[in-house]
Amino acid sequence: MRSSSRGDVDPFIVMDVMEQARRLEQAGRSIIHMEVGQPGTPAPKAARAALAQAMEQEALGYTVALGLPELREGIARLYADWYGVQVSPERVVVTAGSSAAFVLAFTALFEAGEAVGVTEPGYPSYRQILKSLSLTSWPIPTHAKDRHVPKMPNEKLAGLIVASPANPTGTMLSKDDLGQLISACQKQGTAFISDEIYHGVQYEGRAVSALELSDDVYVINSFSKYFSMTGWRLGWMIVPEDHVRRIERLAQNMFICAPHAAQIAALGALGARDETEAMLAVYRENRRLMLEGLPQAGFNKIAPPDGAFYIYADVSDLTQDSLAFAAEILEQAGVAVTPGLDFDPVRGHTTLRFSYARSTADIAEGLDRLKRFMAERK
Amino acid sequence: MRSSSRGDVDPFIVMDVMEQARRLEQAGRSIIHMEVGQPGTPAPKAARAALAQAMEQEALGYTVALGLPELREGIARLYADWYGVQVSPERVVVTAGSSAAFVLAFTALFEAGEAVGVTEPGYPSYRQILKSLSLTSWPIPTHAKDRHVPKMPNEKLAGLIVASPANPTGTMLSKDDLGQLISACQKQGTAFISDEIYHGVQYEGRAVSALELSDDVYVINSFSKYFSMTGWRLGWMIVPEDHVRRIERLAQNMFICAPHAAQIAALGALGARDETEAMLAVYRENRRLMLEGLPQAGFNKIAPPDGAFYIYADVSDLTQDSLAFAAEILEQAGVAVTPGLDFDPVRGHTTLRFSYARSTADIAEGLDRLKRFMAERK
Repeated sequence: MRSSSRGDVDPFIVMDVMEQARRLEQAGRSIIHMEVGQPGTPAPKAARAALAQAMEQEALGYTVALGLPELREGIARLYADWYGVQVSPERVVVTAGSSAAFVLAFTALFEAGEAVGVTEPGYPSYRQILKSLSLTSWPIPTHAKDRHVPKMPNEKLAGLIVASPANPTGTMLSKDDLGQLISACQKQGTAFISDEIYHGVQYEGRAVSALELSDDVYVINSFSKYFSMTGWRLGWMIVPEDHVRRIERLAQNMFICAPHAAQIAALGALGARDETEAMLAVYRENRRLMLEGLPQAGFNKIAPPDGAFYIYADVSDLTQDSLAFAAEILEQAGVAVTPGLDFDPVRGHTTLRFSYARSTADIAEGLDRLKRFMAERK
Repeated sequence: MRSSSRGDVDPFIVMDVMEQARRLEQAGRSIIHMEVGQPGTPAPKAARAALAQAMEQEALGYTVALGLPELREGIARLYADWYGVQVSPERVVVTAGSSAAFVLAFTALFEAGEAVGVTEPGYPSYRQILKSLSLTSWPIPTHAKDRHVPKMPNEKLAGLIVASPANPTGTMLSKDDLGQLISACQKQGTAFISDEIYHGVQYEGRAVSALELSDDVYVINSFSKYFSMTGWRLGWMIVPEDHVRRIERLAQNMFICAPHAAQIAALGALGARDETEAMLAVYRENRRLMLEGLPQAGFNKIAPPDGAFYIYADVSDLTQDSLAFAAEILEQAGVAVTPGLDFDPVRGHTTLRFSYARSTADIAEGLDRLKRFMAERK
């Protein structure tokens, strides 16, 4: 059977690590999961209760393509609550995870062959989704010494996608830095896409939304992280008013609608602030343990993350092959971590990402295992 | 903000009809839904019970990209049950609805600019998804007089997608016809994609799967129709063995995974054959009523559908503007129907699609309304 070159994308390495970890667990090994960017907690109780009730009362067929009107209103209210910004519910597009939002945004904005700027390190799927849609990614290397703030390249790009808090570094952009990127893009007709899926998961001040600075941007967010609903595959996008109908048509055809059950659960989650803030308190404690424990284990080149639940460690003094090192840590220490190559194909052979999204007991145990492993390795 | 030409897709007209129907209902009108292709029933009880239980016991985070192993095994067993064909679970890809399967198949198989054959009439989103992925659709007109069997065009196409039972006509391809299309494609290196989402919903014999004829095809199916789970957004795809890893990488990046909750529910649905067969009995009775009632109302140019839950009526003696006619029927008769333009941009101005997927009481009431409306219209 024939196949396309654009379909030849790289694997999402972290998912292969997950699979290796699953195999070891199936064989009876205990594995601490510091690889995957997902909470160990289920969706909030209120989310599950809302769905349990709806399953008894409604058929849960297709929703309209842009999502349940009440959910779009609830999401719009978040922008008033979190940022003091008025966003019309009309501009809210409910999507099948932020993944679907990326696909919708990229197809709505860019022609085949155009180039979109992505940071290195950064979320690996940006590059792969761009490739699968016959787009080119334009790498923008960022550096720990300037807290990974991307510099606008000289090339005229069709688009730029930036995350804050960032994955894998956890760094946040200041309002000034974000504003400068947005203006630079707008000056040259470059579409600015702000990936805000870690908003709410923040430890030093709050993340700034691109919507505080401009309405002429695409903003992508999700119920996966702060609301602890990864597997439900529900996200959203705020688009400029004159792009709503364009996105609606694309969504009708490409996705029909986001999962109805997840939309009902998300409505419940929006009202569960006590639960979600309690989860945040856990990440905060985990972060404290990580910042203390990782250097004790020998991972010294780390920086305190502003948000998200990752620490991106420079391990260049320990290895030149992060893939092999991650496999060694999984096999020897029983801790799954993600090789930096997922995030930075150029410099990622000397970095690792540690996730601290699981329970505090898991994090403590994982750190103990890492300390023992590294002590024996020396 | 900039926008792309490939993002300028047509609306899915049936979803606009749904929205107009919703507004009339909100204003207090009673509307019978013969527009949308979805059962009026919820997911099977066993599906909902499985999820209700899992929500108490599991975190329901990401699954692996290809789907829960038990679900892939359950789907593979369907091929033995339904067709007597052995399919390895390794070849089963669980997707976020058949929509996601189309996106995965088209990106995995075709380069930007290539042409894919689609039947006219046919499922409208094929054309729109192809356009959004910078692909061209090559229209293949089919005709009622030969039961809508498509003829292979002389042009060398990159791919051909064919549905049996077909939407909107309900016609099924015989094993011979399907086999001839597959061989013709294989001879010239054209990828054959078999859309089998209405399999199981059949009244005269059973639908033939492309997998009964060849392993070198993509087969797409879904839990939406026979299993009554539209809003859950869960489908699947069977791909050739040497395409599994390619699809896995694309799925990891473009979708991460299909909704976990829907996967759990689908596992329950697979075991609920009594319930799904009871739904089929309802469609069978509805079909009988439609074949009797539509001609009485004045819709004479129809053919008995082999499967699915649609009747595609030639209304050329009643109108040359199916869009206006459907609006008139909605407004005057309180029955929502879909203008043929959704399915056939060339000849659809003189056709309507009637769906009979709702309850028998609804269908009877809808037919009464249509009879009264048509009697007054004459």
